Amino acid sequence: MSKITPLSGFPEWSPANRVVEQHFLDRIRRVFELHGFASLETRAVEPLETLLSKGETSKEVYLLRRLQADAEEPRGAGDAQLGLHFDLTVPFARYVLENAGKLQFPFRRYQIQKVWRGERPQEGRYREFYQCDIDIVDRDTLPAHYEAEIPLVIGDVFAELPLPKATIQVNNRKILEGFYRGLGLADPMETMRIVDKLDKIGPKGVLKELVAGGVSEAQASACLALAEISAEDGSFAEQVLKLGVTDPLLDEGLAELVAVVETAAAHSPGLCRAELKIARGLDYYTGTVYETQLAGYESIGSVCSGGRYDNLASSGDERYPGVGISIGLSRLLGVLFGKNALSASRGVPTCVLIALTADEDRAAAMRTAASLRARGIAVEVSPSAAKFGKQIRYAERRGIPFVWFSGPDGDSVKDIRSGDQIAAEALTWNPPAEDRYPTVSGPIV
Amino acid sequence: MSKITPLSGFPEWSPANRVVEQHFLDRIRRVFELHGFASLETRAVEPLETLLSKGETSKEVYLLRRLQADAEEPRGAGDAQLGLHFDLTVPFARYVLENAGKLQFPFRRYQIQKVWRGERPQEGRYREFYQCDIDIVDRDTLPAHYEAEIPLVIGDVFAELPLPKATIQVNNRKILEGFYRGLGLADPMETMRIVDKLDKIGPKGVLKELVAGGVSEAQASACLALAEISAEDGSFAEQVLKLGVTDPLLDEGLAELVAVVETAAAHSPGLCRAELKIARGLDYYTGTVYETQLAGYESIGSVCSGGRYDNLASSGDERYPGVGISIGLSRLLGVLFGKNALSASRGVPTCVLIALTADEDRAAAMRTAASLRARGIAVEVSPSAAKFGKQIRYAERRGIPFVWFSGPDGDSVKDIRSGDQIAAEALTWNPPAEDRYPTVSGPIV
Repeated sequence: MSKITPLSGFPEWSPANRVVEQHFLDRIRRVFELHGFASLETRAVEPLETLLSKGETSKEVYLLRRLQADAEEPRGAGDAQLGLHFDLTVPFARYVLENAGKLQFPFRRYQIQKVWRGERPQEGRYREFYQCDIDIVDRDTLPAHYEAEIPLVIGDVFAELPLPKATIQVNNRKILEGFYRGLGLADPMETMRIVDKLDKIGPKGVLKELVAGGVSEAQASACLALAEISAEDGSFAEQVLKLGVTDPLLDEGLAELVAVVETAAAHSPGLCRAELKIARGLDYYTGTVYETQLAGYESIGSVCSGGRYDNLASSGDERYPGVGISIGLSRLLGVLFGKNALSASRGVPTCVLIALTADEDRAAAMRTAASLRARGIAVEVSPSAAKFGKQIRYAERRGIPFVWFSGPDGDSVKDIRSGDQIAAEALTWNPPAEDRYPTVSGPIV
Repeated sequence: MSKITPLSGFPEWSPANRVVEQHFLDRIRRVFELHGFASLETRAVEPLETLLSKGETSKEVYLLRRLQADAEEPRGAGDAQLGLHFDLTVPFARYVLENAGKLQFPFRRYQIQKVWRGERPQEGRYREFYQCDIDIVDRDTLPAHYEAEIPLVIGDVFAELPLPKATIQVNNRKILEGFYRGLGLADPMETMRIVDKLDKIGPKGVLKELVAGGVSEAQASACLALAEISAEDGSFAEQVLKLGVTDPLLDEGLAELVAVVETAAAHSPGLCRAELKIARGLDYYTGTVYETQLAGYESIGSVCSGGRYDNLASSGDERYPGVGISIGLSRLLGVLFGKNALSASRGVPTCVLIALTADEDRAAAMRTAASLRARGIAVEVSPSAAKFGKQIRYAERRGIPFVWFSGPDGDSVKDIRSGDQIAAEALTWNPPAEDRYPTVSGPIV
């Protein structure tokens, strides 16, 4: 192996940061499972046709080609052009359609996998990252109560993580579409796209773009007034109605969003907030949409987003409406690692190092190690019978808290942080609970 | 989304099989950690140059190309041709060289990730699969005792899995190279490559190929005699010496292999067997090599292979010899799933379904659910207040063992398998331990 090339956009964590990531992955998975979501993993690749069905992000796809593909092997009918998935929603929709006959609906699944985006180099964006998704899909119709359930699951997830307070901002596409339609705007989707830039280009910029697109100043002002509405309870609906626009889809959206916000307020006060400026860029959302902000880290944008989609997993007469949300884990960790805001107590699982007095003692040391492992304690035997000082430094450099010594008068174990050494037996000794596994601390625990 | 195309070689498990896979992944990880291996994940892509440095499997690489890559963006110096990794050893070697200054040596890491191989379509081989690797690398020199440690870790892994007995077959490349050299053969690597085909083409086939390559019949017979030697203890060394070939490298290899086999016999009787026909195809092994067979499933070949490599992670003056082994998890599961030899007690994590008497009770049901979840019990609330029979069938079809009812006289929980229903409180009730999580059963537990 000759040259080593770091690749921008492909993060690789240090062993200590990997402990933090695994801690997050384990807790996220545990909460998803407590809420009855089944695990699913889909293949990393999809036919290009499937990936492009979502539209907008087509430019970010990585295509695959076999190194040895050649003229002798023309592409067969079943050998479509393949690309790496750029999210987990599109593959999930494909999976549901492909396996509908074998699945039980409503189908609740979680999916924690890496995704890839063929971003331009040097944009400082990740090209490979973890997403942690939950979705609920049903056949034909999906009851609205699932749209209220999703934020509660995410609230439970964030409560388990060493992070600042998370607030889920919710809106409903029907409110936006109905309001714009009630205002008499010709292209509600285009309006939504422009209003979604509010945080980027400000109210003046939005006004200008709307007017340039043929919207009157009064209509544009109404769109901005709607976008400014925000509340932690159902009171936002009254504020919307005061703007004087009426439309049946608007009413439907308001009722659904009130239910989401009121359910959240009842079960997890302070978790959700109706924010009528939230639109989500993606075309396929048709109802509730979610974005999540971390207190003190608002500038990094949403760390967990999603929404309801009615037409993503549909084919001919089959229709599987769904609602889902996705935690952008790698990006979140990348930001926090960059600020040194998350750390692990050690970068190795090892709790105890068995010291060696002589190399001939290795067999006995391995028996001691096996005895501790049988009770769930992670153990390594020292690499060599070096001086004890050197063996202790081996443990120290890795953050291993305990070193085990065997002698003619029995065994002892030393906490190398405090220096305390006590007599111990491999069959009975236990480390303090907080030392058994590496622990993780965050900016606010 | 229009057409759904199943892709051969990219397995996707059902939710129930995914429970089995996760069970395996969790137990493998746990044992790796008990032995002090730190978790690492490397990016999915490597520069083509890195991937090709291993030689032989270059033909199986998937190359990546950005869909929107075009003439405006000529490839820069730092923007190498990328391919998906086809194993975890080559990326790990690259990672060690790239991060050597930040790592503590000897460095013990495990890595559980998917890998991709651009096999020809329709060969019935996987193109995406999980590998579960452990490796120990050191700076400059790596003590031989690590070669004896690796099989013990794998023995502990297999002991935790619902599988038939695993036997690790071990050999040492130095024995083969030294023996062939001592015989006076010009090209020991070529001889190794031919003898490695023994199980495929039989002794006559090997003899023929060796002779065709310029090896005398007597020399070829000696090579075959060596390949026939096999023992569970160090007695194989004597059998080798009886063949009358002498070489310093042969002696070194024999001493190392005796140590591996004797250590295994002392700590885990019956786990390891010296099999002098084992060579491993890959060029980079320089010492002990491992293959693993499952009793009753010998025909599927090795399910866990590896060896010692002295030159893989080396660059200029830096040298990081290592030893490692890899469990080919997806392939193993694929074979066992194909024989219906592994199954999960249910395909959902859910232990309890909260039934609804009326849709207005959903808020109360959600509080009951939260109360059970707070004590680690996985719960779903029923999709709707359908008739109880329908709600019970919802649970039944998913394998959810318990349904929870709330009434004016208090709550009760029903085991829908036995029909037993008992009074219960959400704050105190616990399911039997064997029902809390899905369980997995195998051919021999």
